[in-house]
Amino acid sequence: MNRIATPSAGGPAAARRRAGFSGVLVPVLTPFTATLEANAPAFVAFCRHLLAEGAGGLAVFGTTSEANSLSLVERRHLLAELVQSGIAADRLMPGTGAAALPDAVALTSAAVGAGAGGVLLLPPFYYKNVSEDGVFAWYAEVIERVGDARLRVYLYHIPQMSGVPITLSLIARLRDRYGEIIAGLKDSGGDWQHTERLLKEFADLTIFPGSERFLRAGLAYGAAGCISATANVNLRLIRAVIDARTQAERERLDQRMVALRAAYESVPVIPALKYVVAERTGDRGWRTVRPPLTPLPEAEGRALLARLGAAEPR
Amino acid sequence: MNRIATPSAGGPAAARRRAGFSGVLVPVLTPFTATLEANAPAFVAFCRHLLAEGAGGLAVFGTTSEANSLSLVERRHLLAELVQSGIAADRLMPGTGAAALPDAVALTSAAVGAGAGGVLLLPPFYYKNVSEDGVFAWYAEVIERVGDARLRVYLYHIPQMSGVPITLSLIARLRDRYGEIIAGLKDSGGDWQHTERLLKEFADLTIFPGSERFLRAGLAYGAAGCISATANVNLRLIRAVIDARTQAERERLDQRMVALRAAYESVPVIPALKYVVAERTGDRGWRTVRPPLTPLPEAEGRALLARLGAAEPR
Repeated sequence: MNRIATPSAGGPAAARRRAGFSGVLVPVLTPFTATLEANAPAFVAFCRHLLAEGAGGLAVFGTTSEANSLSLVERRHLLAELVQSGIAADRLMPGTGAAALPDAVALTSAAVGAGAGGVLLLPPFYYKNVSEDGVFAWYAEVIERVGDARLRVYLYHIPQMSGVPITLSLIARLRDRYGEIIAGLKDSGGDWQHTERLLKEFADLTIFPGSERFLRAGLAYGAAGCISATANVNLRLIRAVIDARTQAERERLDQRMVALRAAYESVPVIPALKYVVAERTGDRGWRTVRPPLTPLPEAEGRALLARLGAAEPR
Repeated sequence: MNRIATPSAGGPAAARRRAGFSGVLVPVLTPFTATLEANAPAFVAFCRHLLAEGAGGLAVFGTTSEANSLSLVERRHLLAELVQSGIAADRLMPGTGAAALPDAVALTSAAVGAGAGGVLLLPPFYYKNVSEDGVFAWYAEVIERVGDARLRVYLYHIPQMSGVPITLSLIARLRDRYGEIIAGLKDSGGDWQHTERLLKEFADLTIFPGSERFLRAGLAYGAAGCISATANVNLRLIRAVIDARTQAERERLDQRMVALRAAYESVPVIPALKYVVAERTGDRGWRTVRPPLTPLPEAEGRALLARLGAAEPR
């Protein structure tokens, strides 16, 4: 296996990447009922809508999905509902991370069993300052206990939430041991230098920046697309940036996309996105979040809609 | 309800506290088999040993217990094993926190149903920078969904792990809303000024410093005792500090206790404690930890035993 970077030549860099996911993957918001139960029918309907809008995949049960506020049983149930509804399982990249090894094994096994195209696997996130050996051992146990050659793991780097970074040496060790099972990575660290280094050093991994802010730069270095919270509400435009046929067109669309993203910067993004989905679907239930998150106050929601309106093209 | 502090008069300050837990509570280490399964018989035997040594209570499923590396099913099973073995449930203060609300509700309900004297309840620990309103809402949902007047919640302040502090204003709001259900707090923040302030402002709460380093100072301000990792291996001495009949005796014992504690400062404490328990019980299986923790290397373990030997009285 070659981990030495191929210098980016500015060509169709995505062609360097292995088959798998590409484009805009959506960390799908999870709707709740008024009594805070997961709302499976609304979830399935929203997933269908996102695929119809052109999502490259559905990264259900991510951070934006409030996945770690869901029980193991709830995540398995929602996944089963999606597959039973006829959504193509290979377009699903469920988050299967958990603080406890047995939970991560159970969720990952369920995802592989359902035919998911991959899993987005957080490191264990309770203990802090753990050794790289310990994090490696944790991923190794998950992979070996699942014990299925179909497994494709996308590592999830989001140290500001998990407290546990996915280091470059950890990726290299996991790739050396598990080969193509370690398929890719989502980099939500918010540091472009880090994303750039990953793209250069791991040219054979499928790498997604965790924000559309780094989409254009990422594409130039061979990123597979992006997995972004705002793809829940702005999928077509993000996709248009990827699909742009000229550099000038991409730059123009990118500016619009970044302006829309900026509208969310002053508000908590998950409640804000749910507010916007509630507005668009006409279903106020979408505003509900599970504690410890709190719904966006009405005044902040109105101001957000005004900012979005101002940023939208007329 | 009176939250105004009674000035500490240097008398038997513990008498100011409500009935409940007191003395040395042990965040009991969780033994695993060679295949990383929870070892219930060894766990029950160790709990019996700790009670025989004079533990004021067993704070099973704490941070030291690797509780967040255990599944919900495992925690419920181990709790049931303890109670079925005849251990008095009112001496148990299981950790029932979880990132997901339904898990915390299920674990807390199971603890109350088993007759536990209280629960040690972490805040939800995945999302960071959450609002106090959100954390309040989370605790409120747990308490109301459990819906049992027997529930006694001990709040768990350990921001270096959970990422979510238990603020003084949060405690006050929860006490105002739920009265005696909010029974106390474990302060593992490692900041004596914070512990002192809690003891002064919440004289009617049962407060445990999370380390024996603050035991002596804590007792002077009415702490109920302490909940300390090293109580797994050094319970009698910590208890002797509490039971000392004179100030001079307490100071002498405290110096010994602090010297023994210091032997652990250069090593990861959970693997180190397990190494020591393995040595004392003659069961090397005790050295096993679940990833992301890693076992203490043999050389470090030998050096630790040497330091402990040097610190022990002859």
